[in-house]
Amino acid sequence: MSHPIEPTPRHPLLASLSDARELSAMSAETLADVAVEIRDVLCNLLATRTAHFASNLGVVELCLALHAEFDFLTDRLIWDTGHQIYPHKLITGRYSQFESIRTRGGLMGYPNPHESDYDLFMTGHAGSSVSTAVGLRSGDILRDQRERRTVAVIGDGAFPSGIVFEALNNAGELGQDMTIVLNDNKMSICHRTGAVASYLDRLRNNPFYTGLKTEVVRLLDHVPMFGDPAERLLAQMKEGVKAGLLGGMLFEELDIRYIGPIDGHNIPLLRKYLQLCKETSGPVLLHVVTEKGHGYKPAAEDPVFFHTPPAFEDRGGTPVTRRSEGRPPYTTHARDAIGEAMKSDPRVTVITAAMCQGNKLEPVREKFPDRFFDVGICESHAVAFAAGQCKTGMRPIVDIYSTFLQRSYDQIFQEVSLQDLPVVFMMDRAGLTGPDGPTHHGVYDIGYMRLFPNLALMAPGYAAELPLMLQAALAHLHPTGIRYPKASALELKHVPAPIEIGKSEWIRHGEDGTIVAYGAMLEQAIAAAEKLDGELSVGVVNARFVKPIDHDMVRHSLEGGKFVVTLEEGTIVGGFGSAFLESAVDQGLDTRLIRRLALPDEFIEHGDRTDLLSDQHLSADGIVGVCRQSAARVSVG
Amino acid sequence: MSHPIEPTPRHPLLASLSDARELSAMSAETLADVAVEIRDVLCNLLATRTAHFASNLGVVELCLALHAEFDFLTDRLIWDTGHQIYPHKLITGRYSQFESIRTRGGLMGYPNPHESDYDLFMTGHAGSSVSTAVGLRSGDILRDQRERRTVAVIGDGAFPSGIVFEALNNAGELGQDMTIVLNDNKMSICHRTGAVASYLDRLRNNPFYTGLKTEVVRLLDHVPMFGDPAERLLAQMKEGVKAGLLGGMLFEELDIRYIGPIDGHNIPLLRKYLQLCKETSGPVLLHVVTEKGHGYKPAAEDPVFFHTPPAFEDRGGTPVTRRSEGRPPYTTHARDAIGEAMKSDPRVTVITAAMCQGNKLEPVREKFPDRFFDVGICESHAVAFAAGQCKTGMRPIVDIYSTFLQRSYDQIFQEVSLQDLPVVFMMDRAGLTGPDGPTHHGVYDIGYMRLFPNLALMAPGYAAELPLMLQAALAHLHPTGIRYPKASALELKHVPAPIEIGKSEWIRHGEDGTIVAYGAMLEQAIAAAEKLDGELSVGVVNARFVKPIDHDMVRHSLEGGKFVVTLEEGTIVGGFGSAFLESAVDQGLDTRLIRRLALPDEFIEHGDRTDLLSDQHLSADGIVGVCRQSAARVSVG
Repeated sequence: MSHPIEPTPRHPLLASLSDARELSAMSAETLADVAVEIRDVLCNLLATRTAHFASNLGVVELCLALHAEFDFLTDRLIWDTGHQIYPHKLITGRYSQFESIRTRGGLMGYPNPHESDYDLFMTGHAGSSVSTAVGLRSGDILRDQRERRTVAVIGDGAFPSGIVFEALNNAGELGQDMTIVLNDNKMSICHRTGAVASYLDRLRNNPFYTGLKTEVVRLLDHVPMFGDPAERLLAQMKEGVKAGLLGGMLFEELDIRYIGPIDGHNIPLLRKYLQLCKETSGPVLLHVVTEKGHGYKPAAEDPVFFHTPPAFEDRGGTPVTRRSEGRPPYTTHARDAIGEAMKSDPRVTVITAAMCQGNKLEPVREKFPDRFFDVGICESHAVAFAAGQCKTGMRPIVDIYSTFLQRSYDQIFQEVSLQDLPVVFMMDRAGLTGPDGPTHHGVYDIGYMRLFPNLALMAPGYAAELPLMLQAALAHLHPTGIRYPKASALELKHVPAPIEIGKSEWIRHGEDGTIVAYGAMLEQAIAAAEKLDGELSVGVVNARFVKPIDHDMVRHSLEGGKFVVTLEEGTIVGGFGSAFLESAVDQGLDTRLIRRLALPDEFIEHGDRTDLLSDQHLSADGIVGVCRQSAARVSVG
Repeated sequence: MSHPIEPTPRHPLLASLSDARELSAMSAETLADVAVEIRDVLCNLLATRTAHFASNLGVVELCLALHAEFDFLTDRLIWDTGHQIYPHKLITGRYSQFESIRTRGGLMGYPNPHESDYDLFMTGHAGSSVSTAVGLRSGDILRDQRERRTVAVIGDGAFPSGIVFEALNNAGELGQDMTIVLNDNKMSICHRTGAVASYLDRLRNNPFYTGLKTEVVRLLDHVPMFGDPAERLLAQMKEGVKAGLLGGMLFEELDIRYIGPIDGHNIPLLRKYLQLCKETSGPVLLHVVTEKGHGYKPAAEDPVFFHTPPAFEDRGGTPVTRRSEGRPPYTTHARDAIGEAMKSDPRVTVITAAMCQGNKLEPVREKFPDRFFDVGICESHAVAFAAGQCKTGMRPIVDIYSTFLQRSYDQIFQEVSLQDLPVVFMMDRAGLTGPDGPTHHGVYDIGYMRLFPNLALMAPGYAAELPLMLQAALAHLHPTGIRYPKASALELKHVPAPIEIGKSEWIRHGEDGTIVAYGAMLEQAIAAAEKLDGELSVGVVNARFVKPIDHDMVRHSLEGGKFVVTLEEGTIVGGFGSAFLESAVDQGLDTRLIRRLALPDEFIEHGDRTDLLSDQHLSADGIVGVCRQSAARVSVG
């Protein structure tokens, strides 16, 4: 039951807003009314689908103030991470399409330059906004377009990400005018962690925010001067006092002017300080305090749950989630397997990068708090940290989404693969993630992980394999990776063959050909083979490993001139199918009857995972068709 | 002419040092004598080969003080980046082997756990030491081995690398005892850049270092207290003054205790402060100021040249470099091509990550200072920054070594490939880098770059192609990459065929088979084909592109049942050979006569590049042998 967004009269201001630039002339009262309308749209949307919610509720006023003070058709605006983009979309010409958000063919849940000139970069991975903003500013200056202002909006969760520090280091040196809005909502999807978080907590409690700042600064001007030992030192001392009281030394030391913290839900105040930022020369950081979930009490009280809640209905202020049914997802099996491993082996730790909730690790965190490490959105550190732990004899499991693990690529190389340390990578969301779209699809890990020596890389084909694979990984004295998608796990009745590094599992044999599935596509492979029963005799292999690949399996599957269809939920470039070809050619086998089924070498949009897979023949029916074609080639050949 | 290191009596202390732990009992005078001996060894070594020099001269005293104060067979020591490891090797049982450093089969020029228990991690890429140290400390605590102390030594050049900030964020929160020694030599191979560098400059000039600190702190205790408005604020004020004067707010704000800066060439002082670090609870950063090249005047005066100087002889205090002869390397051709592009198109910029010298970009920097950007060892930022510039209509060239580009993998994905922005990646050192070894070999880029959509990836086979490829890249409206090795470039007499995206160049046709070379291996391919003339008629293809691969070339090369040998200086996994197989199989071609020649799926040690390539049949003779085998298979088949 969807609750369509009603046009006027429900949202008269949004419906009549033809251009975000109209906001600049609006009164504070009208802007407040627009904020009410935006929140209404957001709350209605959440009755229909899973979507980013609390973060969007939190930036409504900030978004309005930004668009009121800047003209982002010439000025530059980057929303870091991008999931807080909904209010921005609603006021930049996409109100009437908004109901389509996160559905196939509809608006994307992240900034999208193909949708609007107001969206500059498709973001989704955290932390890069400051870098791109520094680049934009640098480019605009070189192109003699200094009048175009530059703004990056970044959350406190994304802020500790290393690239932000790299960008501040560069911004502070270049000294070019730009505004970095630090949207401090004290969250990082999960509750945030780390020393930067504590630092921001202290800043929020400083006198500026509590209104005493002016008084204190005035007071300081009356500190008596000493004649001895040196006036230079005393000048320094006063500066020290001011800086200590005004706060923001972390930024000031990097030559970034710090302003704030200020209330992020007060539009006139926000506009006043954004004006100040515009007038400030050099890079300036405006520290804005917002409440995640602001304006909807249940979300403000539980912003973790309401980050991307499942569809719910509000029954008199109480949100009621619609029950999801069906088999548990791989993520749950992975979490349970991790919990079991930690229970039976005190050396096992788990490390996540702000994905405690996404990876469903809360119960593990509660049960083993000393061996649970959430390092925040710092994937590079997560992996090198794991390597350090590993060196002491611990057995760390790094639990990170496939797409975000890209952020630690160099550490996988140097700290893990090169040292041959038995770190276990659990790659969640490996495959199409559905409504999040191309920034979040995890379709490259097969290719990028298998390049490095020493790694054993596997993927479960069904639920019962996952704990067995984790056990095998922990027993292996070299680095390992286990990938699985954001999908419910196939539950097979059969007793899994023991996991042996580099060995696949034959599910059934066939006279005409074999489908060799790597990972969760096994489900579609079995369904396809069963559909073909009576017409074609098609075997099914659960490949289990892409590295080392099972050379015997490759040879056996091709024996007798049978066709082979390889199947994987990853890019067709350099993936499992390519590993299969490499093995076949190195063994001198004929590869003409191999057909690789995988995702195409292009960015896949958002939509329902099953639909997106079907588009690429990665459904039972699609595989049936490919098998028929292959069988026809065999009989012709 | 090598100058072998003479044992006793030239270095009696080093020769008789059986264990680094003996240093702790040595007098200041004896330690100073050891330092003299170490510098003598280093200066002698440099007469024989290219090696890291100035950075090693700079850490002699620091290294001795560390080993005197800690026992690094139980305590943990990580040398970040690792090229300053020579003094450490000399005092940890490797003096007698030292002459072999950076030669094949000899000592590695970086820490190497296979050589000594004193080396924990093989480092080479910058910035990860703090993360691994935090992990080591965390693991030691979990394993109830709290008595093992942890030290990371990191240079100011590596310090702005994002992962360091991520690690400090985590270290500050965990609050576990550890010492981070910031070795501040004001350099980052090239002169360092960035706001962190300016910050460190200010710290060095603060009263603590100039000896006034104690006096100032005493003075502060006499600042009169005001009764109004609140004592709380005044207490804060005093803390602010102290922190402002003591310095280190950047670290203190992250809950890292800051001590320093102190003179890094005074062993007793270093020992005193290292003791203080040991006694401090929680993470502490000791800021040590050293002089790169200390103790050898020419190196101290020109530390950029003396970072890794070519072999030289000292003639009465004047180093005389031995002339290198031969064809210019690809790096020079790349630099010249970049300079030409910047000259003819004002939109072109060049971005490097502290590799101004390595990439020979100094003349470009001098000629186009406004369009030259050295962002320091911040590869992630470099790429996202380039994307921002690109969005404004500029045409940035990102000039980074293949192995270090791994550090921006996620930005290549999100900021460049996903946005389809025409950033040009110049991947220098793509292939075996020779004496640096596995941390520096750039052998994965073919595989990891070709996974992402929208990228066109190419490699010149000879010198004259490089500028043409850069022109083609700049004319292409999508991302591009150009890879080339650390090697002299082949100079062909022929007029290169125009560069067309996705099209290869046939150098010669053959009746029996074809060698398809991707990149600089073309030189060996041509030599092999010429050696075989009269025996076998072998064609040679200059593949030029791995993405898009030239499907017509693939088909033509396999036509008529000829053998094909693919050739590349990269890992055999997922590289050019695999792309060739993918194309062949997708076209339904017989792949049984394809042989992929590439580097094996293992880490390759250091040594002379030509020797290392020969080991893998990647020499003219090796290719000749493989062609003969392939021809034999054709006649059998």
